Amino acid sequence: MSYELTILGCSSAIPSLKKNPTAQLLNANERFFLIDCAEGTQIQLRKYKFKFQKISRIFISHLHGDHYFGLIGLLSSMHLLGREKELHIYAHVKLKQIIDVQLEASNTELCYPLFFHIINPETDEVLFEDKKIKISTFPLSHGIDCNGFLFEEKRSPRKIISEKVKQYNIPVEQIKTIKNGKNFISEDGRVIFNSELTIENKKPSSYAFCSDTKYCESIIKKIKGVSLLYHEATFMNDRKNRAKETNHSTTIDAATIAKLAEVSHLLIGHFSQRYRDENLLLEESKSVFKNTLLAKQGQTINFSDL
Amino acid sequence: MSYELTILGCSSAIPSLKKNPTAQLLNANERFFLIDCAEGTQIQLRKYKFKFQKISRIFISHLHGDHYFGLIGLLSSMHLLGREKELHIYAHVKLKQIIDVQLEASNTELCYPLFFHIINPETDEVLFEDKKIKISTFPLSHGIDCNGFLFEEKRSPRKIISEKVKQYNIPVEQIKTIKNGKNFISEDGRVIFNSELTIENKKPSSYAFCSDTKYCESIIKKIKGVSLLYHEATFMNDRKNRAKETNHSTTIDAATIAKLAEVSHLLIGHFSQRYRDENLLLEESKSVFKNTLLAKQGQTINFSDL
Repeated sequence: MSYELTILGCSSAIPSLKKNPTAQLLNANERFFLIDCAEGTQIQLRKYKFKFQKISRIFISHLHGDHYFGLIGLLSSMHLLGREKELHIYAHVKLKQIIDVQLEASNTELCYPLFFHIINPETDEVLFEDKKIKISTFPLSHGIDCNGFLFEEKRSPRKIISEKVKQYNIPVEQIKTIKNGKNFISEDGRVIFNSELTIENKKPSSYAFCSDTKYCESIIKKIKGVSLLYHEATFMNDRKNRAKETNHSTTIDAATIAKLAEVSHLLIGHFSQRYRDENLLLEESKSVFKNTLLAKQGQTINFSDL
Repeated sequence: MSYELTILGCSSAIPSLKKNPTAQLLNANERFFLIDCAEGTQIQLRKYKFKFQKISRIFISHLHGDHYFGLIGLLSSMHLLGREKELHIYAHVKLKQIIDVQLEASNTELCYPLFFHIINPETDEVLFEDKKIKISTFPLSHGIDCNGFLFEEKRSPRKIISEKVKQYNIPVEQIKTIKNGKNFISEDGRVIFNSELTIENKKPSSYAFCSDTKYCESIIKKIKGVSLLYHEATFMNDRKNRAKETNHSTTIDAATIAKLAEVSHLLIGHFSQRYRDENLLLEESKSVFKNTLLAKQGQTINFSDL
């Protein structure tokens, strides 16, 4: 099972020949979530050899074009390729109108069930939850309605030690309860404590996506201790006034949030096109938060490597 | 002065890594017209080194996504790059709503004047006309509102023969009227006929764009004798039933229209992705209309070479 994040695009504002605006694919144990969907995202998915029909849920942070202009094309291609599986979109209310008016204009009735889940831009909320994952959203601060997303893998049951199964002759039907933490009563009536029979499974992965936003301390408590935080860093610190004016963050802002939230790793992206050498942004961020990574188009980050 | 057509994309329906759906750039004597605008068109313009701020008028044939999904991104990039020059869009009414709702969602007021000209899908009409060009539209037949476009260069004044200017001592102020066809009265009172003083300028270029449409003889009279006809040819003749069902044309349909309209050259495109060897489509079309060309992404056709 794998927990991986692929950067399909990480530039800001305008697509160029080499750099696509924001789109990311999170593979959470073979469930595929698309986060933002700039123009050209369907081509990026093809380029990096992802079968886009596998995507089950799409999360759109806000309605600036560099975060969603590729969505209608992706939905349309899924339709033309005969998708049958349902698709869920989580976004602000206006996106539903944008999609509906375009489907109506082309007289298209999608051949797959599309569920649109409206995000409330004012409050935190859980968007999806099952036994394996919890996905929630929280407001960012970007001038227009804008939300971050938090993907939290749930802790797996403990692993049972196979030698102990043999040693105490544990019947199959009790293994599940032992994995969930129960003790075992052996044939001779002894209590065998769970801690002797099992070991903890790997630490669950968690991913927080925060783009776009100005420096915003209210998000710290939501993203506390995540394995990986993606936080936009459009500008370097010498343009901190420009960052404020445009409701964006600097590298120092992103790194400060990462430090205060005690995250394991910080991934910065959404760089202004003025920066030719993005390593300068990396170095500046590292000066505040050492475990900073630079988002690079096409890269896949495996959470088990963090 | 040049009259050139560049193919930015010519596939049908779904963008792929190598092939973009429909978009064309017509350079009519250094006035730039964009015809259709599939997803990724702004990147195609960059790839082929066109400064997209030079585009003055955009024509959208119909509201299937493979003909317009790139428009909002292009308009947005023009804005972000500080365009000041006005832009004119010619399209069906619903596109205005599609653009407006997206600008509203991002709280964007464009920094350049955008004029939206609504095409009537029922009748022919002149969309733009000045001393040098006439641009008109006519209905196609494609299941939803769909229009073709005709770009007609106006005949330039006749060229004056410089030796004759000397020979008859023609004053400068009379040259313009002579170029426009007037005779000249020489100093000794003789009438010098215009045909002795001038030669005809080059034949004006004309371009007709017909995509998407099923076989439709009503367009023949509109496109009669054009220098270049672009006509979709989604399928080969063995799939003529599929063409009818989907309101598309075959190579034979396109070639027959070209033949009946006595055009100079036919350019076919919008091929279904089922065809790996597009030369088969070319050969089939040539069997009916010899002067057929195959649209190739990135190619520029100079009308003076036709």
